[in-house]
Amino acid sequence: MQKFVYGIDVGGTNLKFGLFEFNKMHLIDQIEIKTPMTNHEVSIFESIFNTIKLVNERNSISIDQIHGIGLAVPCPVKNGFVKLCPNLSWREMDILASMRRYFSKEIQIVVSNDANVAAFGENMVLEKPFMNAIFYTLGTGVGGGVIIDGKILEGGTGLGGEIGHMHMFDDESTDQCGCGSKGCLEQVCGTSAVLSYAKKLSITSSTSLNINNLSIKNIFDEAKAGDDVAIKVVNRIADYIAKSASILAVILDPEVFIIGGGVSKAGQYLIDLIQNHYKKYARFTTGNIPFILARTGNNAGIIGAAYIAKQKN
Amino acid sequence: MQKFVYGIDVGGTNLKFGLFEFNKMHLIDQIEIKTPMTNHEVSIFESIFNTIKLVNERNSISIDQIHGIGLAVPCPVKNGFVKLCPNLSWREMDILASMRRYFSKEIQIVVSNDANVAAFGENMVLEKPFMNAIFYTLGTGVGGGVIIDGKILEGGTGLGGEIGHMHMFDDESTDQCGCGSKGCLEQVCGTSAVLSYAKKLSITSSTSLNINNLSIKNIFDEAKAGDDVAIKVVNRIADYIAKSASILAVILDPEVFIIGGGVSKAGQYLIDLIQNHYKKYARFTTGNIPFILARTGNNAGIIGAAYIAKQKN
Repeated sequence: MQKFVYGIDVGGTNLKFGLFEFNKMHLIDQIEIKTPMTNHEVSIFESIFNTIKLVNERNSISIDQIHGIGLAVPCPVKNGFVKLCPNLSWREMDILASMRRYFSKEIQIVVSNDANVAAFGENMVLEKPFMNAIFYTLGTGVGGGVIIDGKILEGGTGLGGEIGHMHMFDDESTDQCGCGSKGCLEQVCGTSAVLSYAKKLSITSSTSLNINNLSIKNIFDEAKAGDDVAIKVVNRIADYIAKSASILAVILDPEVFIIGGGVSKAGQYLIDLIQNHYKKYARFTTGNIPFILARTGNNAGIIGAAYIAKQKN
Repeated sequence: MQKFVYGIDVGGTNLKFGLFEFNKMHLIDQIEIKTPMTNHEVSIFESIFNTIKLVNERNSISIDQIHGIGLAVPCPVKNGFVKLCPNLSWREMDILASMRRYFSKEIQIVVSNDANVAAFGENMVLEKPFMNAIFYTLGTGVGGGVIIDGKILEGGTGLGGEIGHMHMFDDESTDQCGCGSKGCLEQVCGTSAVLSYAKKLSITSSTSLNINNLSIKNIFDEAKAGDDVAIKVVNRIADYIAKSASILAVILDPEVFIIGGGVSKAGQYLIDLIQNHYKKYARFTTGNIPFILARTGNNAGIIGAAYIAKQKN
């Protein structure tokens, strides 16, 4: 009997579903629905059940062909348990128990934090996945995930791999970060920090940047074209990523750094920049660790979620 | 039949042996011999074999009562394999194979890096060991070890947990660190860095410190007595430890920080200082993670090594 797994990216706005063939992990079908806006404790799981039923039917798949369901959730999670998830109005939620009301024990249910899940997926889609990998997702926020000995590093309370909140600089005049502190990597490398910095530089320096309609793409395009302000901005991103990576390298000793998220659309140019700055900070043999681009793009969540479900037996 | 384990701390100067009763892990006997100075590939293992034979005999223990032997070695080690160990003139050494020439398969042989082993031991001697713990050893160097899900974090090449080489500051005028880079935690919190800083401050400020015969103990004693220079020095140590701990907290999400090494003889005073500085840098819920003092002192190596051997079945 052919088997399948579901990967579900549970976001505050949308629920994204991917149906994957178990052996080769080909994406068979996908669907995106709005996240229910009320009664999240129940309604999200009801939506998941109904959507899986729908997708199964339109693909002529029976429920006993489902090996497992993986969930990526936007909050810390430990052993399937979420203490607090502001995006979904969850508090003290046992996700596994909630899912079990709709799915029998024969179906593996696995849940993990979305950035960690993405890290897992990005690594698994490589021709030869690494046993120890670090994933950065560079977007509005800076997130990430850590794979140790082939497994997601959840940490003691599910807060593991919060790369964006590594303390990277001291500046009391900085605004408070969402984590409650100051000086986070995200406050330098998150997109709003990057745009602000470019705008600030452009006040005192002439630039080709489109300051009134500034975007990350514009900054990278102009940097590639030789604009001094843009070059300074992209080097600052790369420098801080590199510095944080050098710290992670001596603690976690990974085999690879995978760079994803919207900012990574800058491509190999960004990777080369980071790798150059990284050489300054590398210690011992850690200078040899490669940086590579992520591949799964917007599907990182469903792919990673499907892989954590596949792995569970 | 009563069972026993050996913990061996393999150093460049001495080999320290501890014989432990398996169930309660009481230290039954210990012995320290000089590390052989030539032919390290063979002589160290020969010494280990002969010493174990001797200790067994004087305790009336037969070799089949030995559950396992744990080794702590002063270099990165991965799956029992050492690429390079300058302190012991080892290169491309398969430690497990070398031990097997002297000990039968019935005896578990486990080897890991000495700082990681110490971390493991420090956690295991607690009344209730943690599943996720970070251990700092503050001495001439700054070392450490990370326990994730109850296991030592070795990393991809055995370099995991090198806390002392986290990049913590940018100063091109700093000397190069032993790791080949600059700006390491060790370059602020290692004892020679601490002594240099105190001497530097004393040039321009009056102090009760005994500058001509300065010691870490003197600095902490004078800090407790209210000397301004000494207070500045110990706060700098605590501040950097706290900052590095805040970074480790968001990545590894530990349940505890354990502080050991010679500097930790400053006791609860040091712990309180670190915890106070840590509050500035803590993110999310990581402010609740406690700092505690290490307990095993000079026996950290043999105790930790014995515990990794006990754990292996």
